[in-house]
Amino acid sequence: MKLIYLDNAATTKVDERIIQKMFPFFTEKYANPATKWTSSLSKEVDFYVEQARADVAHLIGAEPEEIFFTSGGTESDNTALKGIAMANQERGNEIISTKIEHEAVLKPLSTLERMGFVVKFVNVDKYGFVDPDEVKKLISKKTLIISIMHANNEIGTIEPIKEIGKISKENEIYFHTDAVQTVGHIRINVKEMNIDLLSLSAHKFYGPKGVGAIYIRKGTKIKPFMEGGGQENGIRSGSLNTTGIVGLGEAAKIAEKEMDSDDARIKDMRNLLWKKIEGSIPKVFLNGPQMGERLSGNLNFLIEGIRNEPLLVLLNERGIIAGGGSACSAGSKEPSHVLKTIGIRPEDYFSSIRITIGKFNSKDEIDPIVNNLIDCVKKLRELSPFWKGGE
Amino acid sequence: MKLIYLDNAATTKVDERIIQKMFPFFTEKYANPATKWTSSLSKEVDFYVEQARADVAHLIGAEPEEIFFTSGGTESDNTALKGIAMANQERGNEIISTKIEHEAVLKPLSTLERMGFVVKFVNVDKYGFVDPDEVKKLISKKTLIISIMHANNEIGTIEPIKEIGKISKENEIYFHTDAVQTVGHIRINVKEMNIDLLSLSAHKFYGPKGVGAIYIRKGTKIKPFMEGGGQENGIRSGSLNTTGIVGLGEAAKIAEKEMDSDDARIKDMRNLLWKKIEGSIPKVFLNGPQMGERLSGNLNFLIEGIRNEPLLVLLNERGIIAGGGSACSAGSKEPSHVLKTIGIRPEDYFSSIRITIGKFNSKDEIDPIVNNLIDCVKKLRELSPFWKGGE
Repeated sequence: MKLIYLDNAATTKVDERIIQKMFPFFTEKYANPATKWTSSLSKEVDFYVEQARADVAHLIGAEPEEIFFTSGGTESDNTALKGIAMANQERGNEIISTKIEHEAVLKPLSTLERMGFVVKFVNVDKYGFVDPDEVKKLISKKTLIISIMHANNEIGTIEPIKEIGKISKENEIYFHTDAVQTVGHIRINVKEMNIDLLSLSAHKFYGPKGVGAIYIRKGTKIKPFMEGGGQENGIRSGSLNTTGIVGLGEAAKIAEKEMDSDDARIKDMRNLLWKKIEGSIPKVFLNGPQMGERLSGNLNFLIEGIRNEPLLVLLNERGIIAGGGSACSAGSKEPSHVLKTIGIRPEDYFSSIRITIGKFNSKDEIDPIVNNLIDCVKKLRELSPFWKGGE
Repeated sequence: MKLIYLDNAATTKVDERIIQKMFPFFTEKYANPATKWTSSLSKEVDFYVEQARADVAHLIGAEPEEIFFTSGGTESDNTALKGIAMANQERGNEIISTKIEHEAVLKPLSTLERMGFVVKFVNVDKYGFVDPDEVKKLISKKTLIISIMHANNEIGTIEPIKEIGKISKENEIYFHTDAVQTVGHIRINVKEMNIDLLSLSAHKFYGPKGVGAIYIRKGTKIKPFMEGGGQENGIRSGSLNTTGIVGLGEAAKIAEKEMDSDDARIKDMRNLLWKKIEGSIPKVFLNGPQMGERLSGNLNFLIEGIRNEPLLVLLNERGIIAGGGSACSAGSKEPSHVLKTIGIRPEDYFSSIRITIGKFNSKDEIDPIVNNLIDCVKKLRELSPFWKGGE
């Protein structure tokens, strides 16, 4: 059975071109770049690491020396928040964020709260949008960081980070954005957007798992989170994951060239898919913003009268892999904190699924998805004590 | 020119069998294991992750549920020290360690010191050995953790961790050991050795870079260092680096079977090499313990009258890659903290090199190494103002 993979916000298949690029770093160019001063093999590896750094920098409009490689988005978020908080306590103890951030932001914020920091959450509307004016109202002389995600991983809301960046700059506050869902998918320019710190992850845009980066604007005072041998200019210690870094660099290079056309194609597929779902299944409702204002690959919708776990299992039986919210909260009995925050009714918490389309999906998958979805929803609704019939 | 790679303590070439095992996880089994409850692809990936966990556990005599995957040795060390310190402040604020630990231990200890913890350093002798009785003397009612490495990365000293583990247990103190240089090379059993926390890294025993693990004994109270989505039972958040984890598991499986014979062969090569070097180059002196008491692949020696950087560069020209101390301090103008601690004279700080032999080295490399070393040392001594002639 050919799989139809619709969980690209959780992770993506690695692009074959990227694997080809990584391969030699396992068995030929395997040296530790730290010894580049005396070893030509290390020097060669270092060359490719620096090329990857330049490619990642170019993708987001940063300078190469502002890019630090990490193990992924979670580490980048931890580094940004804890690193700024620990290094700048004299500047203030207040942090502004939202309740729909990824747990990799929310959990470090809780830890900082226990250490005496104050986190002020700006409200989001029923689509998940932050109003920049509301951010402005929360700013005080003690505000040290604003951390607001570029796009939400569950409902795809794209936040007005350029406006928030402008406000941060005017008020001399550090602005961090978790851009794990957007880097490599939509255009970002950290200079134009006044971003001081940005988290990104390779496996969300067809690169390998276990590698990411943090962009830190030149001149930013930050304490290292991962401490040790002093690699990455002292900001991130640990032997460099050269294979992964080269993969991330190649992912950045490919995205730079191809993301606009990929994104347009993904958006077309997503729009068509939603049109067909909406037109053929009664009582389905989009969670989050309208099509033009959300990530191109993202659909998150409520299907009245069903529960999402059995639906996902039935779809899986037919070779269709969708998601039930964020990958990280999968298997959890807690409702999605994002859906809760945007005001979904408690009785509907477990009735939504997430479909996230990627560049390896194709248009001919759409009809099988819709037909199977119609069929599975019908079956579940026949069993459901909550389904009162639609239309 | 065929390279002779002699820097296996810095990093190793990846075993081809491990790459074969990893490969399918890039493009076929690419799903995020977090969604295993509803996706058979994720469930399949999860199966291999758990197999890897069992293989790593088996290698060190732990239970699978005591193994948590990380991005490498540095992260494991940070997790152990900061995690225990932050979770057990009521139990005491004293930590016992040595001055010859890796920076991935020393730097977190400095940070903990700034937070009010007290670090007591137990002396090491001129070979780098810790005397367990000296550890005992430093213990007080406030001692929370003892962190002593299994083997030193520069001079190869193998510490009496079984004795130290026994003392820790008797005194109800957490015992952490950085075993990055020993796991996969020599036999370890965390139960017999009374180890509570152990750090390991895949790329030091022929696995991929960017992945490691921490063993945490069941029942240990620890705070997560990497916070976020709650993966790895809440101990280590972040999407799992499944490709790397499968590689680490395979490295563990191979080591389990082959490490004793590999180690014997490596030891033979190392002993022969040292015999030849000692017999043909005047005024060379071993740093660290005698052959029987150090890591099998490790040689670290002082060559009077030369400086190590030019020697390494000359050897590199001839295709021989050796090291100048630890990889992490390469390029640093600071003398090795390990050599300083074991009492090397300041004028000799930069006259030592490290050769670390691995399983991919072969006996026919020994003569070329020795001949080139003789030749390069001769050339440098002719230039050296410090060389007064030997023998």
